[in-house]
Amino acid sequence: MSVQARLFQGTRDILPEELLPRQELVAALTRTFESYGFAPLETPAMEFLDILLGKYGDEGDKLLYKLAYKGGEVLALRYDLTVPLSRVVAMNPELPLPFKRYQIQPVWRGDRPQPAQGRYREFIQCDVDTVGSASMAADAENVAVVDAGIRALGLTEFVVRINHRRLLRGLVEAAGLNASQEASVLRSVDKLDKIGMEGVQAELTAGGIAADAQRALLELMDISGSPEEVLRNVETRVGGSEAALQGIRELRELLEYSAALGVDPARVSVDLHLTRGLDYYTGPVYEVALTSIEKFGSLGGGGRYDDLMSLYGGAPIPATGVSIGLSRVLSALLKLGKLTMRSSPANALVMRMPDAAATEGLKLCTELRTAGVACELYYDADRLKKQFLFAERKGIPCAVILGGNEIAAGTVTLKHLPTGVQETLPRAALAARIQVLTQR
Amino acid sequence: MSVQARLFQGTRDILPEELLPRQELVAALTRTFESYGFAPLETPAMEFLDILLGKYGDEGDKLLYKLAYKGGEVLALRYDLTVPLSRVVAMNPELPLPFKRYQIQPVWRGDRPQPAQGRYREFIQCDVDTVGSASMAADAENVAVVDAGIRALGLTEFVVRINHRRLLRGLVEAAGLNASQEASVLRSVDKLDKIGMEGVQAELTAGGIAADAQRALLELMDISGSPEEVLRNVETRVGGSEAALQGIRELRELLEYSAALGVDPARVSVDLHLTRGLDYYTGPVYEVALTSIEKFGSLGGGGRYDDLMSLYGGAPIPATGVSIGLSRVLSALLKLGKLTMRSSPANALVMRMPDAAATEGLKLCTELRTAGVACELYYDADRLKKQFLFAERKGIPCAVILGGNEIAAGTVTLKHLPTGVQETLPRAALAARIQVLTQR
Repeated sequence: MSVQARLFQGTRDILPEELLPRQELVAALTRTFESYGFAPLETPAMEFLDILLGKYGDEGDKLLYKLAYKGGEVLALRYDLTVPLSRVVAMNPELPLPFKRYQIQPVWRGDRPQPAQGRYREFIQCDVDTVGSASMAADAENVAVVDAGIRALGLTEFVVRINHRRLLRGLVEAAGLNASQEASVLRSVDKLDKIGMEGVQAELTAGGIAADAQRALLELMDISGSPEEVLRNVETRVGGSEAALQGIRELRELLEYSAALGVDPARVSVDLHLTRGLDYYTGPVYEVALTSIEKFGSLGGGGRYDDLMSLYGGAPIPATGVSIGLSRVLSALLKLGKLTMRSSPANALVMRMPDAAATEGLKLCTELRTAGVACELYYDADRLKKQFLFAERKGIPCAVILGGNEIAAGTVTLKHLPTGVQETLPRAALAARIQVLTQR
Repeated sequence: MSVQARLFQGTRDILPEELLPRQELVAALTRTFESYGFAPLETPAMEFLDILLGKYGDEGDKLLYKLAYKGGEVLALRYDLTVPLSRVVAMNPELPLPFKRYQIQPVWRGDRPQPAQGRYREFIQCDVDTVGSASMAADAENVAVVDAGIRALGLTEFVVRINHRRLLRGLVEAAGLNASQEASVLRSVDKLDKIGMEGVQAELTAGGIAADAQRALLELMDISGSPEEVLRNVETRVGGSEAALQGIRELRELLEYSAALGVDPARVSVDLHLTRGLDYYTGPVYEVALTSIEKFGSLGGGGRYDDLMSLYGGAPIPATGVSIGLSRVLSALLKLGKLTMRSSPANALVMRMPDAAATEGLKLCTELRTAGVACELYYDADRLKKQFLFAERKGIPCAVILGGNEIAAGTVTLKHLPTGVQETLPRAALAARIQVLTQR
């Protein structure tokens, strides 16, 4: 009796066609992260339930996947990478601080899956954090590493929007609102891109925020211009607020440092609407938006969170981090035609001819591999048409024919499938020719 | 009230010091796999329980980690990578066969953890399989890809032991045992390395195998010499068995093909003791053993399993695969002193001098990164001694001093920490000098 093969809803297999480009993307990001001195970290999929509970709000607690371990529910699957980082820092007091780490691992959330929108219950997070420094240089590195990482992937048309939670506090105060209203007001403003200005105003009204306070706040947030223009303008408007002044001072530092790190100032804007909804941010916040596709939304973002790294006791440790949305980036690259989809890493299929032993084909494969060409042998002496079709279906660009005649003459016949061009050339020249044909 | 930071027993964090070399190792293996045309696959951590139950024996079923999903236990965590592959093949009939894939993902088993022996409840598996071909060329590629992969990691002293399940059947028959005893006898013989000959004999005796049958079997298995000598010798002894003849014929083909794929024949031996305990193997089996460390055991192995890929219905699909023990390989490299342990990917720490702004250090970092040197800035103008200590603790080999004098003169001071040598050089020459000093 056989069981029906099927997948749990909201999970999926990543087949080669998607995983090959994703792995290239991860490799490019990894190189960028490491060039900034960020070191890799991995944590277990399973954490004790009490390590996770209460860290993601009531809603988050409900989305945890719990494990039935020896009857009681004491374990749950990783929900994000920040709480495990906090645990690692608490458990490893010998780690030299600042601890600069990146982490690329799946997380699990029992959300309603929306595959059409790319929302799954298992998805990869890609986080970069610096724990143990209050310096704006660490924040500037977050901006720079995301900027450099995204450029390394071939995306050039994007902006980095920055803001500061202390400056936002100044704006909230200047609009006549009090500190207890700040968090919910900022969460509403955060939805601007999704629900529009009217939607935000409706939410603020429903939350009991008076119309004139709303107007005052949204007007302040509308201040625009070059980063320095925005900061100078807002300084004259809310300069009485100590919080705002600190925010402005730190943003100026962040801008200076990120320019020193090679971030093109034309790609950075101060956007006073940016709040990054999460309550735990305490300093600068940043978000990367693609400009070449309308309403595409964020490719990543982050900010400073100075109170989160002491969840498990000990003195507060300043920290700042940024997250890259791998699936978002992949989807952007796909929409912009910057991804070559193929389901095989091989650049050549050595075909199996009826008048040549498999050994001959394997030897040719070995020669190609030694010269750096990824290739595979078609095992069986099937009809040539079937072999060509196999190469096409797997997206292998070159087919190589090595029959009895070719072996005797020391030649091979090469067909480049995308153009259909066929040529006969000396066997020793094959690898170099394939490399020219398949250069990307 | 804060919760105590702790880990579930049998799980662990992989800190940078271990993860940096492991990532290099995975990258080298990935390049090798792809050069053979193997494509990457990832499957979800969670599978429906009935997809996994009954595939790993009663013992395995008990070791599954089950998820409490909406009250009932219907999900479990991935236990290996072979069963998910079988499910993927069943669910994707459009996949061109043979489907050559590699998969490097964690699996979870509720075993008793033995951290001292490197046994954890969460560990990485690294599998390479070819589904949909009965050709011995596919088996030879398994041998070749493991051989090339392990050599790419810098290990040279190892042997690939090969054998064949059909040949083993011939030996079992020749020893006067019947087919129903085969599986348990082979499982006992498989433990030879672990429990010694006396242990194996004791187990066979306990299993009701008569002393003369044991003697006959173990004597046959002792046949040694070059691969062809072993095959010729055994052919004369058990040549009456159709199973044995098929095994011998296929092993000869495998040996010929693996030589064509560049595997040094001196590194391959036919070892008639090798059984690879698992019941599901049906053809050739292989195992890689390190020879430079005594009793180190296997670095990986695999074989042909022609009945496993139809677990979820459909016609049987021939398949063959091999697994590399990542932790074993890492541990071997470590013991042989072939791994540089360091907890930072940076090759240079740009120190922060009291008479130079952070911006200056960040600019120098940008110059180094542009030239391909991974580096980081020490953020705070702490005492130099503290900054040097930080570089040492993180294993960063070069410390760079850029103070007011250096900036004015266009120079930098470079200290190579492992040797203590300090030099002053033109700023433009720094990156190249660090590259020379840190070449590995």
